[in-house]
Amino acid sequence: MAKRTHECGILRGAHEGERVVLKGWVQRRRDFGGLIFVDLRDRTGLVQIVFNPENSQEALDIADSLRSEFVVEVEGAVALRDPEMINPNMETGMVEVLIDQITIINKAKTPPFAIEDRTEVNEDLRLKYRYLDLRRPVMFDTFKLRSDVTKVIRNFLQDEGFLEVETPILTKSTPEGARDYLVPSRVHEGEFYALPQSPQLFKQLLMVGGFERYFQIARCFRDEDLRADRQPEFTQIDMEMSFMSQDEIIELNEKLIQKVMKEVKGIDIPAPFQRMTYKDAMSRYGSDKPDVRFDLELIELSDVVAGCNFKVFASTVENGGQVKGLNIKGANDKYSRKDLDELTKFVGRYGAKGLAWIKVTEEGLTGPIGKFFDDEFGEKLVERMQAEPGDTLVFVADKKSVVADSLGALRKKLGKDLGLIDESRFAFLWITEWPLLEYSEDDDRYYAAHHPFTRPFDEDLEKMVTEPGAVKAQAYDIVLNGYELGGGSLRIHEKDLQEKMFKTLGFTDEEAKEQFGFLMNAFEYGTPPHGGLAFGLDRFIMLLAGRDNLRDTIAFPKTASASCVLTNAPSTVSLAQLDELNIRTKTLADEK
Amino acid sequence: MAKRTHECGILRGAHEGERVVLKGWVQRRRDFGGLIFVDLRDRTGLVQIVFNPENSQEALDIADSLRSEFVVEVEGAVALRDPEMINPNMETGMVEVLIDQITIINKAKTPPFAIEDRTEVNEDLRLKYRYLDLRRPVMFDTFKLRSDVTKVIRNFLQDEGFLEVETPILTKSTPEGARDYLVPSRVHEGEFYALPQSPQLFKQLLMVGGFERYFQIARCFRDEDLRADRQPEFTQIDMEMSFMSQDEIIELNEKLIQKVMKEVKGIDIPAPFQRMTYKDAMSRYGSDKPDVRFDLELIELSDVVAGCNFKVFASTVENGGQVKGLNIKGANDKYSRKDLDELTKFVGRYGAKGLAWIKVTEEGLTGPIGKFFDDEFGEKLVERMQAEPGDTLVFVADKKSVVADSLGALRKKLGKDLGLIDESRFAFLWITEWPLLEYSEDDDRYYAAHHPFTRPFDEDLEKMVTEPGAVKAQAYDIVLNGYELGGGSLRIHEKDLQEKMFKTLGFTDEEAKEQFGFLMNAFEYGTPPHGGLAFGLDRFIMLLAGRDNLRDTIAFPKTASASCVLTNAPSTVSLAQLDELNIRTKTLADEK
Repeated sequence: MAKRTHECGILRGAHEGERVVLKGWVQRRRDFGGLIFVDLRDRTGLVQIVFNPENSQEALDIADSLRSEFVVEVEGAVALRDPEMINPNMETGMVEVLIDQITIINKAKTPPFAIEDRTEVNEDLRLKYRYLDLRRPVMFDTFKLRSDVTKVIRNFLQDEGFLEVETPILTKSTPEGARDYLVPSRVHEGEFYALPQSPQLFKQLLMVGGFERYFQIARCFRDEDLRADRQPEFTQIDMEMSFMSQDEIIELNEKLIQKVMKEVKGIDIPAPFQRMTYKDAMSRYGSDKPDVRFDLELIELSDVVAGCNFKVFASTVENGGQVKGLNIKGANDKYSRKDLDELTKFVGRYGAKGLAWIKVTEEGLTGPIGKFFDDEFGEKLVERMQAEPGDTLVFVADKKSVVADSLGALRKKLGKDLGLIDESRFAFLWITEWPLLEYSEDDDRYYAAHHPFTRPFDEDLEKMVTEPGAVKAQAYDIVLNGYELGGGSLRIHEKDLQEKMFKTLGFTDEEAKEQFGFLMNAFEYGTPPHGGLAFGLDRFIMLLAGRDNLRDTIAFPKTASASCVLTNAPSTVSLAQLDELNIRTKTLADEK
Repeated sequence: MAKRTHECGILRGAHEGERVVLKGWVQRRRDFGGLIFVDLRDRTGLVQIVFNPENSQEALDIADSLRSEFVVEVEGAVALRDPEMINPNMETGMVEVLIDQITIINKAKTPPFAIEDRTEVNEDLRLKYRYLDLRRPVMFDTFKLRSDVTKVIRNFLQDEGFLEVETPILTKSTPEGARDYLVPSRVHEGEFYALPQSPQLFKQLLMVGGFERYFQIARCFRDEDLRADRQPEFTQIDMEMSFMSQDEIIELNEKLIQKVMKEVKGIDIPAPFQRMTYKDAMSRYGSDKPDVRFDLELIELSDVVAGCNFKVFASTVENGGQVKGLNIKGANDKYSRKDLDELTKFVGRYGAKGLAWIKVTEEGLTGPIGKFFDDEFGEKLVERMQAEPGDTLVFVADKKSVVADSLGALRKKLGKDLGLIDESRFAFLWITEWPLLEYSEDDDRYYAAHHPFTRPFDEDLEKMVTEPGAVKAQAYDIVLNGYELGGGSLRIHEKDLQEKMFKTLGFTDEEAKEQFGFLMNAFEYGTPPHGGLAFGLDRFIMLLAGRDNLRDTIAFPKTASASCVLTNAPSTVSLAQLDELNIRTKTLADEK
């Protein structure tokens, strides 16, 4: 085996006359006039290599057996192509390599799909042959990007004095939160480890331990039913710091993101980033992760339509509901009655009982409910919505959450359908002042909106007993283009406040102690104020790479049923293995 | 909360007169002459802060309640200490900070042990209060070192064109190797994931996928009974590369290690590192991971003592055994008969039936067996062992493996006891030409000495059938100061050779296909030659930090029974959780 001297994709005119050893894969072979032309590929790109009888009849003979994806080692001299043969679509298109020695290192069967960026093949086949799928340059580029992004992040944080610390994967099960993956213990019969949903407790313990600035690019696990944008294991850029205010944490993370965007995408993102309270986001965008690359805000109309002639609106307001609308500028010609019926169906999926609409024309307000607004209510409506002839106004009247959900979703859909979104933009946004708790009607209790370690605002402490739903948290999410990119909070660092929090969440003292006693004990030994943040790395990469599938950012992802179709995991194991772990499958146990 | 302006450990004379806000922990408090002196600690070190009535009576009053490990925020002015008060043992010993404002952020109970580098407290208590243990500067320094080392490694490898790729933690169980940790699947009843013992298969698939250069600082898992230097989860610096020879891989890793040693320890390690075949290492040091910081090599004597008067030696050789010895230079006065009896007991633990010894004196060879060598055999012995008056010679006569194990261990012990080791040295060493297979008498089969994907030398391929034990592998371990730091190999990249390997290991075609079929299928689609290496990061850090306990390099380690005494993992879980996972504990299943 000779030593590789060059990579395929880097050869240029300047290499003319140089003798090179290349190693790579046969991308394409063309025979022409007794010569054989091969596009040779490695991870840097393609170069044309040429076999002709003048250089070596022997090499030409061997080349005659080449097929796609054969692995070869070739040796030859770089030559400039004839002017008419220059390929401007290929970075190495000025040159070709005249081969006089070739070794076929490994043969290849015909791949089930072509190794090309554009592929129409279904994803299951791609995942089954992931090793071929990964050969497509677009996939390599995504993982190169991922590697580059983590490099920038690590170097930034380490330069800022953060220590990367690895926290355990075999941890304790804490059922509060999502469902845990469990690992039976062989040594401790009947006991289980859990895979961490996040390093939350450990990073807080590191703060108690005086580390002051911690980060980790950490694997996390959630055994949940999977949607397109979820994976059983995912990666977080996880950090925690002591003695810092919310503003200081946000500022540091803005610098981090600026650095990533500049170094990886060459884009300057101005700071400070936009900030918005949770309340504002819900009110203006009907979403806690609004895409602010376009306007089309939700317009509050409850006060405007109170008492109006259109009874649906009037009674909704009277009964404590809400009426909001969107002004789809200049859309009268774009949306037929049928189109608007489709939009009505669309908002129905979010619980809205209907979508009222008005078209604003030179002649007045038209459409099914136009006639109800042929008065001063109509004038106020037009004024509030800054409506002009040509605009289509749509409305939802319902309880607050339905109005937000349905109009928020409709806004997003319209933004996309109408091309309102500048796809080249990266719009980062902080959402602040989250509710600390969420009430669940199902089991009549409060749940932590983020997690039970989130710090309430000091001025809201008393409300934790009197009005838990109104307590605001010192929490912040970061949103990118309508996706939740990450989130964090200041944490509780006092034992008594943490106890109060667990009580509010309905824990008995025993339950709290059993599950989180070690943390509350730790708080008694001089715990600094601390807070942190975690970014979803997979999603960040997806957005940076301009992909729309989270699986394209993970080398060996799981399918929607949490399987790996390549290796066939999960799989059955031997009874001997289970015996050692002191467990039985239920089927087997029930058979006994 | 004011913004911290400085960290404690960085204050120097140059800061005189500056107003600073410090945040940290009370290390020590001393009251003297109506003043209160506190050593304030953060992760950068200590600084003395002073409360006196001139600066603020109020602050002095608050300071009166300070106890060890209280968390405080203080504000004041940096002042030079009086010359007689300068503390040369403290990096900030020139200065003190005169405090006029203090806030007690959090109180602390008296810690169960002092937060100091030197601690005599038992390890269980340290682990239970790990968050206090981590406050000891020596612990922080170790994790700082760990973070720095991974930074250097990542930057080096990324600069060399390696991509960091994350491979799955939820994988398929492959029983060949150590015992797997299993994770029951909720979705696929009766099926299990396994936690990876290493990313071996995935990194090879990445090579099939054309990534060419991969690395990962990867968590690995083995459910084995733990020794002091084992943990259920551990971290590997894992890499794999295509189209490179063993020498190229070794050379690249020498550069990596040089970089780490230079940047982190300031030490120049000359390259190329020493290399030794497995055979030589076993023969000269009785170990496949010799500590080459000192000599004291094992000396082959079988040919010298064949036919000698000392029957134990003569008959051992006659029966195909081996006689080897160590020359403990100038040790006659150091080792009494009783000491030598102790050494005999010591080698007994490694299976040696005895330790013969001779003291070389001006008068001739003395000791129990000296008289047997009062002839030309004795002369040859002295010559071979380059013995001089004053030297003590020790011998083991046994089968080859016992001679190696016992004398190898004795050599190590003597090196330590006699102070032969330069503790400041870092002696890196490559061990090459490993056996591919190891025969197990227990179940009359061959096992892979490294793993089943290791590549045999081409010239040994035929022996895989005729003489499997003699086949050498293109494998290489790297040893540091007598510890196995890492290891790797070139891999098999051809389907037929991989099949042959599995057959040699006693797999049926079905078993091989069931477990590793996906890899062998992948090999059919144009797999490049590839090889790699993995370093044990935890152990590397242990050696770099000069620690002797692997647990000191892991933030939250497990005990010898694989428990976390801090969080109490593993622990029991609810029946509902097990129900969802379709498993039962055996106890419960048997009760039914």
